[in-house]
Amino acid sequence: MKTHTLLMPLDMHLHLRDGVMLETVAPLSAYSFSGAVVMPNLVPPVTTKEDVQAYKERIFTALGTPLSDEDDLFETTNADYFEPMMTLFYQHYERDFLEEVRDDIFAVKLYPAGITTNSEGGVSSFDLDAMRPTLEAMSALEIPLLIHGETDGFVMDREAEFMNVYEMLASNFPDLKIVMEHITTKAAVDMLEQYPNLYATITLHHLLITLDDVAGGLMRPHLFCKPIAKRPEDREALLEVALEAHPKVMFGSDSAPHPQHKKEACGCAAGVFTAPIALQALCELFDQYGKLENLQAFVSDNAQSIYGICPEFKEVTLSDTPFTVPAKYGDVVPMFAGETLGWSIEDVL
Amino acid sequence: MKTHTLLMPLDMHLHLRDGVMLETVAPLSAYSFSGAVVMPNLVPPVTTKEDVQAYKERIFTALGTPLSDEDDLFETTNADYFEPMMTLFYQHYERDFLEEVRDDIFAVKLYPAGITTNSEGGVSSFDLDAMRPTLEAMSALEIPLLIHGETDGFVMDREAEFMNVYEMLASNFPDLKIVMEHITTKAAVDMLEQYPNLYATITLHHLLITLDDVAGGLMRPHLFCKPIAKRPEDREALLEVALEAHPKVMFGSDSAPHPQHKKEACGCAAGVFTAPIALQALCELFDQYGKLENLQAFVSDNAQSIYGICPEFKEVTLSDTPFTVPAKYGDVVPMFAGETLGWSIEDVL
Repeated sequence: MKTHTLLMPLDMHLHLRDGVMLETVAPLSAYSFSGAVVMPNLVPPVTTKEDVQAYKERIFTALGTPLSDEDDLFETTNADYFEPMMTLFYQHYERDFLEEVRDDIFAVKLYPAGITTNSEGGVSSFDLDAMRPTLEAMSALEIPLLIHGETDGFVMDREAEFMNVYEMLASNFPDLKIVMEHITTKAAVDMLEQYPNLYATITLHHLLITLDDVAGGLMRPHLFCKPIAKRPEDREALLEVALEAHPKVMFGSDSAPHPQHKKEACGCAAGVFTAPIALQALCELFDQYGKLENLQAFVSDNAQSIYGICPEFKEVTLSDTPFTVPAKYGDVVPMFAGETLGWSIEDVL
Repeated sequence: MKTHTLLMPLDMHLHLRDGVMLETVAPLSAYSFSGAVVMPNLVPPVTTKEDVQAYKERIFTALGTPLSDEDDLFETTNADYFEPMMTLFYQHYERDFLEEVRDDIFAVKLYPAGITTNSEGGVSSFDLDAMRPTLEAMSALEIPLLIHGETDGFVMDREAEFMNVYEMLASNFPDLKIVMEHITTKAAVDMLEQYPNLYATITLHHLLITLDDVAGGLMRPHLFCKPIAKRPEDREALLEVALEAHPKVMFGSDSAPHPQHKKEACGCAAGVFTAPIALQALCELFDQYGKLENLQAFVSDNAQSIYGICPEFKEVTLSDTPFTVPAKYGDVVPMFAGETLGWSIEDVL
């Protein structure tokens, strides 16, 4: 039996939702990850200090580790510590507000308006003058900017068309750390070399699938996501930088749960649910390419370096023992539902 | 109230299926069309004279017009006559067989193996030598060849990649009438000018939607079809030749019913069901562009000229009276389910 140990795995892009869904999915991420960057696209979105604190508290409650003291958000008695790295939904914010909220947030997440689930309150035009005060304050306060980078163009072109926005922001705010979230194209990979302050997260599913898997045979609603999976040459480009653990790329699952009836429906919601199977599938993938030694950097070390963070200790040992993915977690159908992966989690310390 | 009358509308590409589904959908096509080219991809496919005759008989039974005499397939007492133009599933056939079946069939339909619903028995390689005897016999007997033109490549490229097969067949068999079925790309439109013996059918849905409508917002399983809807510039090219009723293009709905549970499912079957709403939607579309005068050629006259056929008389009068599309026909969800079209059928004579 082959084993592989990962230290402090991090999911740098995660949707935990709220309510019953939060209770279902939060423990699944907390089991195998040290921490995760939690997306703010709730209804309504997370836009105030109180929103951030209340959401973080709901996450801890869902994990069975309620906060003992409201003044110390990070205190917990649970050994299986999981750190939700909170984000604020981008709006034009005053510097004073950002200073006040600085210690409660990990980053600000920007959505173009209407581009994905619950993003209606996002940015409707990339007007540099309108954004400048906010982005200058974020630069000064060292608050990273995470971006869902898509235009409202033709679905296969949306990410590539967004590259000039990345260029505009990266060149105008050279001290702002900008993360191209869940990149899906060779165009985005190529951008990594262009600007020192541009980074990227990559999901599991975009390393594995193309549009062929979503709509090339039967149509697979559980593989439908935003941004949509692209062309084979795009997947190849993502795979190349992930497998070599390019120092500017990090794993971010973009695990996005929806109840089964919202996926297998007349209008299917976007999102692939991968949190509980991601490390197993990544081990299998990296092992297939003989690159297991790079997985630690992809799922943790790169993020630690890029963001300058020190996650709580967690050691996840996997082995090449087959793991049959459950048909559902609660009411959510995961990627690979009912299929068998080559790797499973042996132990978590 | 504006009205528009269509004479002998023809659907040059139609899936009627079998069994209960046939009983549901056949009368819907028969109500507004004079006739339709009926696809042979049943399970098992239609490959013998007996298959053709038996299927045609089941169609008439489903229409409530059973054949009175097995020797005269075309005899019927029903005034609402609908002619099912039967096709044979392409295999390498002997000339003797084709001669024998000639009077029972309208055309031979070729599917690359595995390319769409029930096409497993199709052609697995386009080997000219292997195909030559069949295609020469078809040429000599003036049996048209209808082709589902897709490779097994990346889903957005499959039709464009197939163009060299069309070129090979069109140039090697100049007397064979070849129809590029349900074309979806500018590449296929451009081929129309290249070879005198190449024609095309165009569906309603490919005139109206792109991949954006299938997977650009929520994912819409009822708009998922093979070939998949392509890019905006492809739709524009199709629209241009349809609206001008280019003499080499014909309307073929490719209306392809599946029960609702096979569409709104984990693996959604390909096909858009348009037969009962096609003429209304085409009137609305052609009217919007001020091209109503060309619709007669697109839905009937071009097909009559290309194939040299004289359909039974049927006169369908439509008016610009709103028509709310039913949520379902039987267990099949149509395109525009629950939506209101600008045109409706007033009368059929």
